Amino acid sequence: MSLTDQLRAANIVLPPVNGPFGAYVPAKRVGNLIYIAGQLPMNDGQLMATGQVPSRRSVDDAVAAARQCAINALAAVQMLDGGVDQIAGVARVGVFVNSDATFTDQPKVANGASELFMQVLGDAGKHARAAVGVNTLPRDASVEVEVIFECR
Amino acid sequence: MSLTDQLRAANIVLPPVNGPFGAYVPAKRVGNLIYIAGQLPMNDGQLMATGQVPSRRSVDDAVAAARQCAINALAAVQMLDGGVDQIAGVARVGVFVNSDATFTDQPKVANGASELFMQVLGDAGKHARAAVGVNTLPRDASVEVEVIFECR
Amino acid sequence: MSLTDQLRAANIVLPPVNGPFGAYVPAKRVGNLIYIAGQLPMNDGQLMATGQVPSRRSVDDAVAAARQCAINALAAVQMLDGGVDQIAGVARVGVFVNSDATFTDQPKVANGASELFMQVLGDAGKHARAAVGVNTLPRDASVEVEVIFECR
Repeated sequence: MSLTDQLRAANIVLPPVNGPFGAYVPAKRVGNLIYIAGQLPMNDGQLMATGQVPSRRSVDDAVAAARQCAINALAAVQMLDGGVDQIAGVARVGVFVNSDATFTDQPKVANGASELFMQVLGDAGKHARAAVGVNTLPRDASVEVEVIFECR
Repeated sequence: MSLTDQLRAANIVLPPVNGPFGAYVPAKRVGNLIYIAGQLPMNDGQLMATGQVPSRRSVDDAVAAARQCAINALAAVQMLDGGVDQIAGVARVGVFVNSDATFTDQPKVANGASELFMQVLGDAGKHARAAVGVNTLPRDASVEVEVIFECR
Repeated sequence: MSLTDQLRAANIVLPPVNGPFGAYVPAKRVGNLIYIAGQLPMNDGQLMATGQVPSRRSVDDAVAAARQCAINALAAVQMLDGGVDQIAGVARVGVFVNSDATFTDQPKVANGASELFMQVLGDAGKHARAAVGVNTLPRDASVEVEVIFECR
């Protein structure tokens, strides 16, 4: 099944990616890699999770937000010539979690993104991953996810 | 116009990159990519912006510092065989902003770097970007910028 | 000398990498690059350094922990078909140091990883590097190290 078909089967709809984007772009293909800009958990034009985890935002909310970031990363690829079906796999995922200094379960949050890629890409969706805590993120988002895809 | 000519036209002078560098290097080419080490806003041998934004350093200062980091990234490429004219475009920019926990406009700071690349490389300078906040940086710099260039 | 021989000569033993790993993998080869997941300073099944530097963990301990992360990155490659001897060099190292907001010597900590790669790979081990501070890390580790290797 193509990734387009997998997304349809999983009932995942890729949102539109609205511009203009200014000096950077949501996705850039270089050779057989696609670099995706750091994605915030935008959903229907709004951030679905803001604030440090867990004092201002629950871990469960942050997991769901990380999943949305992964969907948004696929949406960024959809904008490129060739769309998502040029994706052969996921090379690397970087997850920044807006964290209280005492929060140490960033991997649990990151799983929200990682498992989305597994769901729609299977073994090809497995990737190297770095998950870290930070004291703040753009627009006070609870999580930001960066991705490098491998292309056909 | 070559990048060398563009830099001259923009009146941007690439600073010397002084060694020794120890166990890491300012720039490393691998295949068609050049990985650049995290650049601090060094200018004439001194950091031009230190401290958390905005309590200890203004946003405007940090924007200017991010631009300097981007210039320093080009200077790092200039040291390699082939110099800056081997650059075909910018693949990815990572921007770490030394931030108060309440500061959430890291993208504005990052634009200082992104716009420099657009200025001298045009559309080829557009890139995927991740901008995040951190609670501290080496030498108390206000910003650190990491770059991956695409080569000819 | 092969890297396997260099490690033996340096008396460095690569630890086993225990699974299962869930939705991500310790190492993923894509073209001529191997992306390594963010490594924590695990040693004999335990973290060898936890806590912010320097209030809860000394700089010297963090340097040693960063070195262990680099060894663990090599162990992750050893699990792949072809093992460590497919490594031609180190492209990029990212070092996240669990830091007090007043700690600004992340590069010293990062040298623990960088110098390990130089020790066993010589000039090919030199790499572009980004070292930053963060307010917390998974499992309260004092350092996390991410690596991109270049392959033969």
